[in-house]
Amino acid sequence: MKKKLILVTNDDGIFAPGLKALVNIAKKHGEVIVIAPNSPQSGMGHAITINKPLRIHKVDVFKGIEAYECSGTPVDCVKLAKNVVLKNRKIDLCLSGINHGSNASINIIYSGTMSAAMEASLEGIPSIGFSLLDYSFDADFSQAASHLSTIIKQVLKTGLYNCKLLNVNIPKLSKAKIKGIKVCRQAEGNWVEEFKEAVDPRNEKYYWLTGKFANIDQGKDTDLHALEKGYISIVPSGHDLTLHNSIEPLRFLER
Amino acid sequence: MKKKLILVTNDDGIFAPGLKALVNIAKKHGEVIVIAPNSPQSGMGHAITINKPLRIHKVDVFKGIEAYECSGTPVDCVKLAKNVVLKNRKIDLCLSGINHGSNASINIIYSGTMSAAMEASLEGIPSIGFSLLDYSFDADFSQAASHLSTIIKQVLKTGLYNCKLLNVNIPKLSKAKIKGIKVCRQAEGNWVEEFKEAVDPRNEKYYWLTGKFANIDQGKDTDLHALEKGYISIVPSGHDLTLHNSIEPLRFLER
Repeated sequence: MKKKLILVTNDDGIFAPGLKALVNIAKKHGEVIVIAPNSPQSGMGHAITINKPLRIHKVDVFKGIEAYECSGTPVDCVKLAKNVVLKNRKIDLCLSGINHGSNASINIIYSGTMSAAMEASLEGIPSIGFSLLDYSFDADFSQAASHLSTIIKQVLKTGLYNCKLLNVNIPKLSKAKIKGIKVCRQAEGNWVEEFKEAVDPRNEKYYWLTGKFANIDQGKDTDLHALEKGYISIVPSGHDLTLHNSIEPLRFLER
Repeated sequence: MKKKLILVTNDDGIFAPGLKALVNIAKKHGEVIVIAPNSPQSGMGHAITINKPLRIHKVDVFKGIEAYECSGTPVDCVKLAKNVVLKNRKIDLCLSGINHGSNASINIIYSGTMSAAMEASLEGIPSIGFSLLDYSFDADFSQAASHLSTIIKQVLKTGLYNCKLLNVNIPKLSKAKIKGIKVCRQAEGNWVEEFKEAVDPRNEKYYWLTGKFANIDQGKDTDLHALEKGYISIVPSGHDLTLHNSIEPLRFLER
């Protein structure tokens, strides 16, 4: 049987431990090609680079694995992978992550990790973004490795039917304490910002963006609820932002 | 009656003609505060700035209107507006644009204009992103002005019910040729990329991202269809990316 072609990317950059962990899992399931940003790109959302040219360089970061660093955003990485590096080759699966930090709930909107996976899904490629609820650089990505391997194996075997994108979040728990895997909906939540004001040596004010995430959803079928209970959450995700049940009520705006 | 407070922003930057056009329409409907990026931010999606501090400066760009330029992304502008510039004041409406170029169909995902409006909608503020299907700097934003004014007036009067976000696109037509306004769903579409390869003076390759938009949706209820027929399209939009009808079929992934 022909080996599956698996594209691996992330938003924390080519040297992030989470990417290394994902490559190590992915290589058990097929031929892995890595294309990741050459600098951290957290919070880049679905940004693309249109005012600057993009550069890619082959790098020797993962033993025996073809890998490239790219000067652009996570979405740029996927576009370059498909159109320049892998042109004419069919990508069987795109994996993004493992992100250092949660992309559950509304975080999917801001996430470079999830935007890279979404970009691949727009091309019809089954795609999975993985995130661990631990922001630290030395987060332990090994605890959920066997679960992640199971998910990847299943998706390569059966596909995702009408869905092309999974948002997978992993609780910060030891292997023994992870209870299992739940398929969920995205919880309603938002960020409550608190800008930190400071003054530079020239006496000019500047601001650091900071804030706290607020869960405003009491549902028991959400990703946040599953994570709280010790499960890995999977949200089948799309790219249609239409609020379909608002179309009829808003017909009064028609002319 | 107390004047409504209207926040106006965009992604083409504080000096973009589309922003000026929108400010001129908005000021008929309330007190306008402008906070826009100090440089073009097209294609920034829902990017936020977390690795650099942000700066804002008061500028005198629009006669008699309080205005600020911000060093960050469109989403940063909205966060700063709410938390730093307008703290404790209730924003009645957020308007973003008028974008130079379409944000119909899948373009909403990449759009800084729509991401700014979405960010405000996440805060519960009724928000509208406007885009004209004309990329040129000297695009004529006056042709649809009366229609835009009608939409803004209606939304200020009745709100948007369960919806907080409208994606409004305007065909590149003269006033007489604009047929009216349709409420639609987001069309399925994607970008077919063609990277333009070039070589720099040091003999290193680089790539410009370029491409063509492909409409892959034959529906007559889409934004692209309305625009083709000469209508202004309104897509009621949200932020839940869950593919709800894929939750049950994908339960086989649970453990």
